[in-house]
Amino acid sequence: MAATEATQAADEAYDVIVLGAGPTGENVADRAHAAGLSAVVVESELVGGECSYWACMPSKALLRPVAARAEARRVPGLKEAADVPLDVPAVLAHRDEFVSYWKDDGQVRWLDSLGIDLVRGHGRLAGPRRVVVDGGRVLTARHAVAVCTGSRAVLPPVPGLAEARPWTSREATSAKTVPGRLVVVGGGVVGVEMATAWRALGSSVTLLVRGDGLLPRMEPFAGHLVAESLAEAGVFLRTGVEVREVRREAPGGPVTVLLDSGDEIVADELLIATGRTPRTEDIGLDTVGLAPGSWLDVDDSLRVTGVTGGWLYGVGDVNRRALLTHQGKYQARIAGAAISARARGVPILESDRWGAHAATADRLAVPQVVFTDPEAASVGLTAAAAEQAGYRTRVIDQDLSAVAGASLYADGYRGRARMVVDLDREVLLGATFVGSGIAELLHSATVAVAGEVPLERLWHAVPSYPTISEVWLRLLEAYRG
Amino acid sequence: MAATEATQAADEAYDVIVLGAGPTGENVADRAHAAGLSAVVVESELVGGECSYWACMPSKALLRPVAARAEARRVPGLKEAADVPLDVPAVLAHRDEFVSYWKDDGQVRWLDSLGIDLVRGHGRLAGPRRVVVDGGRVLTARHAVAVCTGSRAVLPPVPGLAEARPWTSREATSAKTVPGRLVVVGGGVVGVEMATAWRALGSSVTLLVRGDGLLPRMEPFAGHLVAESLAEAGVFLRTGVEVREVRREAPGGPVTVLLDSGDEIVADELLIATGRTPRTEDIGLDTVGLAPGSWLDVDDSLRVTGVTGGWLYGVGDVNRRALLTHQGKYQARIAGAAISARARGVPILESDRWGAHAATADRLAVPQVVFTDPEAASVGLTAAAAEQAGYRTRVIDQDLSAVAGASLYADGYRGRARMVVDLDREVLLGATFVGSGIAELLHSATVAVAGEVPLERLWHAVPSYPTISEVWLRLLEAYRG
Repeated sequence: MAATEATQAADEAYDVIVLGAGPTGENVADRAHAAGLSAVVVESELVGGECSYWACMPSKALLRPVAARAEARRVPGLKEAADVPLDVPAVLAHRDEFVSYWKDDGQVRWLDSLGIDLVRGHGRLAGPRRVVVDGGRVLTARHAVAVCTGSRAVLPPVPGLAEARPWTSREATSAKTVPGRLVVVGGGVVGVEMATAWRALGSSVTLLVRGDGLLPRMEPFAGHLVAESLAEAGVFLRTGVEVREVRREAPGGPVTVLLDSGDEIVADELLIATGRTPRTEDIGLDTVGLAPGSWLDVDDSLRVTGVTGGWLYGVGDVNRRALLTHQGKYQARIAGAAISARARGVPILESDRWGAHAATADRLAVPQVVFTDPEAASVGLTAAAAEQAGYRTRVIDQDLSAVAGASLYADGYRGRARMVVDLDREVLLGATFVGSGIAELLHSATVAVAGEVPLERLWHAVPSYPTISEVWLRLLEAYRG
Repeated sequence: MAATEATQAADEAYDVIVLGAGPTGENVADRAHAAGLSAVVVESELVGGECSYWACMPSKALLRPVAARAEARRVPGLKEAADVPLDVPAVLAHRDEFVSYWKDDGQVRWLDSLGIDLVRGHGRLAGPRRVVVDGGRVLTARHAVAVCTGSRAVLPPVPGLAEARPWTSREATSAKTVPGRLVVVGGGVVGVEMATAWRALGSSVTLLVRGDGLLPRMEPFAGHLVAESLAEAGVFLRTGVEVREVRREAPGGPVTVLLDSGDEIVADELLIATGRTPRTEDIGLDTVGLAPGSWLDVDDSLRVTGVTGGWLYGVGDVNRRALLTHQGKYQARIAGAAISARARGVPILESDRWGAHAATADRLAVPQVVFTDPEAASVGLTAAAAEQAGYRTRVIDQDLSAVAGASLYADGYRGRARMVVDLDREVLLGATFVGSGIAELLHSATVAVAGEVPLERLWHAVPSYPTISEVWLRLLEAYRG
C-alpha cells in the first residue's frame, strides 16, 4: 500500500502528454510516437471520444439507411419496394454495433499496439509541463502538453431548460427508443441531421430555428433545399423563433416548449443543438495563466499563444478553428509534426502556408458533408465569406438536375452546385454541392481548393460520363463563357 | 424540279464541317460556333450519337436501379424490403424515356438554338475541305472538316457469328425484352456492365472471356472484385475460352455457342462485346490520301497528320486515343479551340502539355467509371502502365473496408483503392477505386492527376469524415510511412 502510493506519487516523465483521447488526441499521440517520442494520453471517459460514440459514427449509422431508402425510392423498379417504414430495431442495433456498444476496448487495444500509454482519469494542468490525474498521479512532459479535450453542447440560458434535461447531440445519437414527438432547437448540422434521422425513424419532428434558415454557415441554397426536403418528409419547420421557457413536470414525462410568440409545443423529447463550448473549464488552465473555460488561441503550428516556453498545444475543437473531427485530426497531424520537429531542435516555419508544420486547410479548405437528404457539402469559402475577406470573386451556379449523371442517379433529382472563384489568381476559393449522392464528389473540390489548381488546368480534369461529377464541366464552361 | 436540283448542286460554304452528330461532333460544332465560326453537322442517324441512344445513357439507366437495390440491401432496416426482383417493365420504360424513345427532336432543337446547321444524310469527303452528302449536296469548309463519326462494335471472324445476328452494345442497351439465357462474350466494360444489368433484370447470364480476367485495362483487383460479385449474383463466368463457332437455326430461335474446349452453350441471345472499329470505312478518306476504315492519326490539337493544308481533324473514338464519350467531348473542346485559333491566324502550341490547344488528359488523365456492383473507377496510369512507361513509381494499396465511411455506407463493404506515385516528381500518376459508392470519388483523383498536385499538398486536402473519401488519408499516410 505504501509502496503503491509512493509509485503513484513519483512523477512520470513523457516527451508528450495528451489530454483527451478523442480522434484528435489519438492522432497527436500517434504522430509524436511515430516520430520517436514517448507519449501518454489521459482520458476520463471513453477512448475514441465524442466522434466514435456520440457524434459522427452513430449519427451516420442512423442516417445511412435513410439515404439508401430515399435513393431506392427515386429509381424505377424499386419505388414501391422501398416505400416502407425503416426497421427501427435493426437500425438502432446497427448503430449500437458501430459505436461498439459504447465500449472502448478496440480503441484501447489500438493505443496499446502503438506503444502509447493510456492513463484513465481526469487530467489537469498543474503549472508548466505538468499534469495531475485525479488529483494524484503526476505526469511531466519533456516537450509538450497537447490539450485535445474537445467541446460539448452548450445549453442556452432558457428558464426551465436545464431542469427539463433535454437531449443534446449525445442523447440524440444514442437514444434507445424513438420519441413520439421530438422538438429540435437549432438549424445547424446537428439539428438538421437529427431531425432527418428521427423523422425517418418515426418521430413527429418540429424543428425550431432562431434565424431565417437552416445551415447558416453554408451557401443559402443549401439550407433552402434541405428545408424543402425536410418539409416534404413531414418535419414541421419554424424559423425566426426563440424558446422562452421550457417545462417538464415529471422526468420522462412530456416537455412543453414555450416560444416567444406565445405558442406552446408539447413533445416527448427536446433536442438542443444550438452551439458548443470548449471542454477547458476544469483542466487547470489557470495554473498556466489562461482563463478556465476559454477557447485556446493557437498559432498555425497549434501552439497556444502567450504561454511561456511554448510547450502547450491546443488541438481540435478547443481552438475553435474548425469544429470537425477530420479537421481535428488534420491539426493533430500538423501538431504532431511540429512537436517532434521542435523536440529534435529543427527550426520550423509555423506560418508557412501549406507547409508541413502549419495548419492551413482548417482556415482555407475546410470540407463538410451534411448527411441530410439531399446531402449538403461544402469546402472553402462561401460567396459571402470570400467577399467579406476582400477577394475579387466570381460566383458560378449550376442546377444539378441539368447534369445527365444526376438525372440518371435519381428521378426528379433536385440539387445545386456553386463555385467561388478568386479572379486575381483564377483558382477556386470554395465550392458547395447539394443533392443526392454528392458526399464523395466534395473531395474533388477539396483537392482543387487546397491544391490551388488553376481553373485553366481544371479544364483538363475531365469528369467521367455520366456521373454527377460532370457538374464540374458545366461550372467551368459557365466560367469560361 | 430543275431549280431544286440546281440548289442542291450549288456548294454551300461553312467555316467548319463536322461529320457525325454524336456528343463529340456536337461539341466541336458548339465550340467553333461559340468562337464565331459558322458550322454545319452532317449526320446519317440520330443526332446525339451512340452515347445518347445505345451506350452511356441507356446502360446507366438500366444499371442505376441495380446499384440502388444492391445498396439498399446492404443497410440495416431495408434488407428485406429491398430484397425483391426489379420491376422490369418499369426499368425498361425508364430506359426508354432516357433515350427519348430513340428520337432526336430534343438534340436537334439544341443545335437549332445554337444556330448550328444540321444536314441529315451520309457525308463523305470529296477531296480537300469538301464533303458530299448522300452523293448530292456539296459542302465546303473554309477552315476545317472534323471527322467525329465514332466507332462501332466489331464482330470477330467466328464461323456462323454474323449469320446468328448477335447483340452488340446497341441491341444490349435497347432490348425490349429480357432474354431467358444470355451469353456475353467479352470482359471489358460493355461485357461486365451488360452482364450486371441483364442478370439483375432476370436473365441467366454466362460471361465468356478470352483472357484470364475482367476489365483488363484496369488494375487487376478491379476485375477480381467485379468477377467475385458477378459470381455471387449468379453470373456464370468462364475465363480463358475462345468461341469457335456460333449457330442459330432460326431467326429469334436459340443460339448455340461452341467453345474451343468443345463445350456448347445454348442461349436465347448472344452479346458480342469484344472490340470497336472506327466508322471511317465509307467517308471518303481515300479522296484525301488516307486508308478507308483506318483509325485517324492525330496530333495533340486533334489535327490528322499527313494531310496537306492541315484542315482535317479527327476527334473522338476515330482517333483511338481514348474511346469514351467524355474524352471525345474533351477533345472536341480542345479541337474547337484549336480550329478557331487557327482560323483567326493565332499561332498555337499543339504540343504544349496541358495547354489550351493540346489534348493532354486523354493520354495522362483518362477517368472511367464502370457501373457494375461494385463500381470500378480509375484515372491515369495503372501500376503496370506506369512502369512500362519508364516512371520510377511507388504503388500504395488500401482496403476500403477499413475506412469508416465505407463501412458505414454498406454492411460487409468490399473494396480496394490504389494510387500510383511518380517518385521523381512526387505526384500522382494514377488511381483506382473499386467499391460501392465510389463513382463520384474518382473525380478527386482526376483533379489530382490532371492538376499534378504534389503529394505534400494533398496532405492538406482533408477528406470529410466519415466519407469513403477518407481513403485518401489512408493512402497518403501509407505513402509517408
